[in-house]
Amino acid sequence: MREEFQADLNEVSRLLVTMAEAVRAAMRKATTALLTADLKAAESVIERDVEVDRIYQQVETKVADTIARQAPVASDLRMVITALHISADLERMGDLAEHVAKTAQRRHPSPAVPAELRTVFKGMADVADQMAEKIADLLGKPEAEAAAALEAADDGMDDLERELFKILLNDDWPYGAETAIDGALLGRFYERYADHAVNIGEQLVFLVTGQPVDGQS
Amino acid sequence: MREEFQADLNEVSRLLVTMAEAVRAAMRKATTALLTADLKAAESVIERDVEVDRIYQQVETKVADTIARQAPVASDLRMVITALHISADLERMGDLAEHVAKTAQRRHPSPAVPAELRTVFKGMADVADQMAEKIADLLGKPEAEAAAALEAADDGMDDLERELFKILLNDDWPYGAETAIDGALLGRFYERYADHAVNIGEQLVFLVTGQPVDGQS
Repeated sequence: MREEFQADLNEVSRLLVTMAEAVRAAMRKATTALLTADLKAAESVIERDVEVDRIYQQVETKVADTIARQAPVASDLRMVITALHISADLERMGDLAEHVAKTAQRRHPSPAVPAELRTVFKGMADVADQMAEKIADLLGKPEAEAAAALEAADDGMDDLERELFKILLNDDWPYGAETAIDGALLGRFYERYADHAVNIGEQLVFLVTGQPVDGQS
Repeated sequence: MREEFQADLNEVSRLLVTMAEAVRAAMRKATTALLTADLKAAESVIERDVEVDRIYQQVETKVADTIARQAPVASDLRMVITALHISADLERMGDLAEHVAKTAQRRHPSPAVPAELRTVFKGMADVADQMAEKIADLLGKPEAEAAAALEAADDGMDDLERELFKILLNDDWPYGAETAIDGALLGRFYERYADHAVNIGEQLVFLVTGQPVDGQS
């Protein structure tokens, strides 16, 4: 029984790592689509989001199956329920990468991001990528310090978002409302992606320590 | 055992109804704050979001406790896992109401929404309110037609969002980038609120029929 339960957990963990790698790859490619007006890259991200959704369903099914067969309690039960929350966050991260790709697609062949904003979006994409990489690592081997590293990275994202708004709201902004709105929404997509990564870090701390982390994003 | 399980389910259901009523009240008050530049209303929504978060934690605890004590399988297990998903959607709806309130707070004493946008935001708030009301009803007594009604309402929300962007992107837009960005982000908050309501409708259909509803928002 114990061995079977461990095998079930390993399978769930493997699915979550695959999902984390998929949403990391999706945001990388979406950023390429955004910064180089690459239509093919944008379309590929949009098409492949169903794969993330499919793994999400697999996690759901596997967790329900594990609960039904193994009737876990206490920390075992906490682990499988935590997996459900993490997969929901990862699924949403995939959606946010898709939103970035859709913005690139809609503005193609024009670039969605004018020259003045490229540096800040490059910065946001780098932070998002580091956070997704950290999560994929942590899902393989959770540790209690997970949340701290992700929260520090998220502070960097928040700084970049403030920087973005400073540029968008400058009196000399030359691109009009549409490009300003796209810039603000894109900024929000990266920032939300990072928020979900922070949530996952908090779930992983809860998994390891049994103590909830204060503060919801 | 059976009776105990039913009592547990009733308790979870009661918590979810309370949560739905709270996030409905929060969005109503946030809209008042937005449309009348009412700082007290905005602050009240922001302060009271912790209450929604607290019920969310209660649902989590109650569900884990129910699984551990009753070891439900099949449709019983589906019910308690579905409750977890629904509470996560409701928690997020509370956050979105808080975002609307924070926008009103940040722009106070100026109104965050100029005259040209009042009608469309009034419309979005009405749709959001009807959807939240429908959910509170359905959580009391789920039915298989739940998703259809909520999706129809959500189409109305999408139409209003298109209308909003038409105004924001009109060449004659007189208010500059900041008000355009606030308008676009506010539109997104209402639209996401409606998306989560649609998700809950789909979860309720799954609860009643055992069949997933196609299409994720």
